[in-house]
Amino acid sequence: MTIQPETTARLLITCPDRPGIVSAVTTFLYHHGANVTELDQHSSDAHGGRFFLRLEFQTPALDLSSEAMSRAFGEVVGERFAMDWRMNFAANRPRMVLLVSKHDHALLELLWRWSRGELRVDIPLVISNHPDLRGAVEGFGVRFEHVPFTQDTQVAAEARILELCRDSADFLVLARFMRILSPDLVAQYPHRIINIHHSFLPAFVGADPYQQAYVKGVKIIGATAHYVTAELDQGPIIEQDVARVSHRMSIEELKRLGRDLERQVLARAVRWQVEDRILLDGSKTVVFS
Amino acid sequence: MTIQPETTARLLITCPDRPGIVSAVTTFLYHHGANVTELDQHSSDAHGGRFFLRLEFQTPALDLSSEAMSRAFGEVVGERFAMDWRMNFAANRPRMVLLVSKHDHALLELLWRWSRGELRVDIPLVISNHPDLRGAVEGFGVRFEHVPFTQDTQVAAEARILELCRDSADFLVLARFMRILSPDLVAQYPHRIINIHHSFLPAFVGADPYQQAYVKGVKIIGATAHYVTAELDQGPIIEQDVARVSHRMSIEELKRLGRDLERQVLARAVRWQVEDRILLDGSKTVVFS
Amino acid sequence: MTIQPETTARLLITCPDRPGIVSAVTTFLYHHGANVTELDQHSSDAHGGRFFLRLEFQTPALDLSSEAMSRAFGEVVGERFAMDWRMNFAANRPRMVLLVSKHDHALLELLWRWSRGELRVDIPLVISNHPDLRGAVEGFGVRFEHVPFTQDTQVAAEARILELCRDSADFLVLARFMRILSPDLVAQYPHRIINIHHSFLPAFVGADPYQQAYVKGVKIIGATAHYVTAELDQGPIIEQDVARVSHRMSIEELKRLGRDLERQVLARAVRWQVEDRILLDGSKTVVFS
Amino acid sequence: MTIQPETTARLLITCPDRPGIVSAVTTFLYHHGANVTELDQHSSDAHGGRFFLRLEFQTPALDLSSEAMSRAFGEVVGERFAMDWRMNFAANRPRMVLLVSKHDHALLELLWRWSRGELRVDIPLVISNHPDLRGAVEGFGVRFEHVPFTQDTQVAAEARILELCRDSADFLVLARFMRILSPDLVAQYPHRIINIHHSFLPAFVGADPYQQAYVKGVKIIGATAHYVTAELDQGPIIEQDVARVSHRMSIEELKRLGRDLERQVLARAVRWQVEDRILLDGSKTVVFS
Repeated sequence: MTIQPETTARLLITCPDRPGIVSAVTTFLYHHGANVTELDQHSSDAHGGRFFLRLEFQTPALDLSSEAMSRAFGEVVGERFAMDWRMNFAANRPRMVLLVSKHDHALLELLWRWSRGELRVDIPLVISNHPDLRGAVEGFGVRFEHVPFTQDTQVAAEARILELCRDSADFLVLARFMRILSPDLVAQYPHRIINIHHSFLPAFVGADPYQQAYVKGVKIIGATAHYVTAELDQGPIIEQDVARVSHRMSIEELKRLGRDLERQVLARAVRWQVEDRILLDGSKTVVFS
Repeated sequence: MTIQPETTARLLITCPDRPGIVSAVTTFLYHHGANVTELDQHSSDAHGGRFFLRLEFQTPALDLSSEAMSRAFGEVVGERFAMDWRMNFAANRPRMVLLVSKHDHALLELLWRWSRGELRVDIPLVISNHPDLRGAVEGFGVRFEHVPFTQDTQVAAEARILELCRDSADFLVLARFMRILSPDLVAQYPHRIINIHHSFLPAFVGADPYQQAYVKGVKIIGATAHYVTAELDQGPIIEQDVARVSHRMSIEELKRLGRDLERQVLARAVRWQVEDRILLDGSKTVVFS
Repeated sequence: MTIQPETTARLLITCPDRPGIVSAVTTFLYHHGANVTELDQHSSDAHGGRFFLRLEFQTPALDLSSEAMSRAFGEVVGERFAMDWRMNFAANRPRMVLLVSKHDHALLELLWRWSRGELRVDIPLVISNHPDLRGAVEGFGVRFEHVPFTQDTQVAAEARILELCRDSADFLVLARFMRILSPDLVAQYPHRIINIHHSFLPAFVGADPYQQAYVKGVKIIGATAHYVTAELDQGPIIEQDVARVSHRMSIEELKRLGRDLERQVLARAVRWQVEDRILLDGSKTVVFS
Repeated sequence: MTIQPETTARLLITCPDRPGIVSAVTTFLYHHGANVTELDQHSSDAHGGRFFLRLEFQTPALDLSSEAMSRAFGEVVGERFAMDWRMNFAANRPRMVLLVSKHDHALLELLWRWSRGELRVDIPLVISNHPDLRGAVEGFGVRFEHVPFTQDTQVAAEARILELCRDSADFLVLARFMRILSPDLVAQYPHRIINIHHSFLPAFVGADPYQQAYVKGVKIIGATAHYVTAELDQGPIIEQDVARVSHRMSIEELKRLGRDLERQVLARAVRWQVEDRILLDGSKTVVFS
């Protein structure tokens, strides 16, 4: 289906499930000239569960401005069903700030996809605790900020990161950022920090997952993109993928294969974030991919 | 989501796309007490395309009988949008007749899943052009009919098959049936005969696909479930899956691996057929899985 | 490669790695008329590691009996390189005893593959702590023994199991046997008991892994075949496989998908066991598949 | 297994199968101080088939120079078994020339892996029929040559390509080069030109395979790396991979997904080429990966 991205809007809804929601939502949109081109819904339970909805609609024939449309939806539909909802108009591109250390593979994958138009997102900034990747980042025309970050300087470093992100980041992506962020910083971006973990969570939480996988002798390794929460490697999982390994492979080869997984898994998670495809369901995600 | 299958109904719709369809359908259902628990839609093109919809709804609070509900839907909604539509009430289980030759793997997979309740379908009959599998079939408590089928007896054989299926089959499944059915027979069950082909179509059409794959030296083999049409191995594809192979494998090993693929692919296609998840889009399928 | 299984022998070797092993082994075999048709080797480390070898050779032109061949190999080659080794002649089919509870899917998969000749193994016996599957097992012409097994009767039950297996089992397979065997019983069959665990180990050790996976919201589920050791779900992993899941799937659907994984993973692990393809490397396995 | 790549040599052998080959080869190497660290063999048929062997061995303790070692092997072993063979010493890195048009994804993937040391190969040159990618290529410190190439100028263009490659290319890679090379040029690099085709061959030979796949409605798309021969898209297949697609995806999305497949499949094929893992078996390949 070929759609003009510029004239697309998205409506995301979470609310207690009860009859009549889809009817109310789609009737409202229809009456205001919105043409629904994609609709996904999910009920966590047929009786007393949560209801999740993602809609894409075309805006050329709307009879209201985007602000008025949002306000009216809230009053007419949102309040009636006690909805958590948001309406995003694609003209407003989200802003993503990337944090990275020395490994470049996840970062370059995202920058490359962004540069060829695969990701409708703005990247105002890449922040790193090492200066190494400045050239690579600036080569894409993206600003690079080096923020030294040691255990001793963590407070100042995080203050600097927050200062850099304020007014410029709708969400953050840890593209193999090797420092653990404090709960305070995480609390500033609730479910708006995406991390790529180099294992098939919940297996191999913590440091050196490839080493752990090698020692354990698993036959499949994986990578996991998840939202960062205060608890290490425990946040809601967005996407995972795996690859077969064998006794022939050294740890170095597991890492090489793992890098490929990390690139793909993080790229999918970021695309879904940018396209508003991820909804929270407690400690899990609903992904309308 | 745990749903009572007995009180579930499904609505399938295909029609020209235009604004207001989902609103009209869901509002109609809401007004008659139907609780929508699953909804999938698809537009083949944002401008002038076809619209496809599959809905599951719960029936306990309906204010009409199933017959009256269907009639009302047709008059109020179906005609207005020039819909191809059908409403299935799960109390009416579809009836599936299996055709098989000597290979038992696809047949046994389906019978085993059916016997443990994975497939909500009735199996009034298995028809074979060989007597070999009578014991296996009757062991599941299913009637077995041997219909000899050679090039010379094809007309009589197909007449007998049609006679056996009349009044007892909503759809047919060729679970490795090694005879090519005539266009006349196929025309009696348009898009209601499912075949499992032992290759990744459109590669390796025709006879001996594993031999063809072996000679070609492909690194991946596959299996394809598709609707049977008058043109051999060309009908709309329902499902496919693949497995890696290597130079180490003999043709026998390709066949062994392929049998596993065939079982899985056919089982999924049949489940989707039974659950009304397949809609036709010209020579392709839309599968709301 | 089409090989006569009746005239195939296999040589399995583990020893400290050092130069000259393959030369010594293959020269010995060549001089005695053995035709090597498959050879896999692995070194755990280029310096000071362990060496693993699996060979298949054809026996028609041997100049010694199988007993004399084995004795000569031990004296000429085995002792020189401090080898752990065994030579299996395919005429001697291994004997497998299956333990099962009420779930029939893993059991039937193995019996079905065995009955069509995919597994060159003898199955003298199926043991269950429930009587339910007697009919299914005896339908394959296999003896079924019901051994009640509760926490109170564990000692007697295990004594009975050992009695049944003595002289009739080269290895055991727990095809969803829902009781935990005592370390004493496990010690009788060191690395000769295969279990199928219904998760992607080491994620979701212990009970109800599908429930755990559902609560965690993973995007991929798995199954793991491993050797049983005294520590629950911690033995060397033989094989794993995975399938994608989504928020749409209920726990029941995870279980259905998981059953398919369990069948495939266990079938592969058993085939490799039967074909002498699994060597131990500490707490891991080397699988020459 | 951690190995020093600098001291690794590889021996590749194809010959008629008969008893004693592995014994002769490994005994020769052992007597000259070579330590075998990897060995793969394959017989196309147990009786009268072809034999394929790939060996890696460590060179520090060799008692001969590499030239003398090669000469001795040919005289002592190669002639005796009528072998096609070659011995590569890793100190000699192979030289790869890339041909590309406007699509940058396959090219950048290879350059990026090469720049981080994943591919032990020299890249003296990238040739393109368009000037667009000069900056991207030179950014990696690699020479870029623009050779205009139209139907009218094909003869001159190919002469120029051959001139550029002479003395600088051991093999060529068509990283989405959108021109069909003449049989004459192909004949200069027999089985030394790798192409990435954007479909799961032999399905969708020729132009616009994603369009073909979309129209056909396949549920899985693929990519294929193969050696170029005089017959379009028919050369020996080196590697393939696939991804699931659905009715939701537009042709643009198939292409995006396909680009990811192309990058991965081509990267694997090139790594295997660089590591001497590919042997020819008539119109097929034996890949010791």
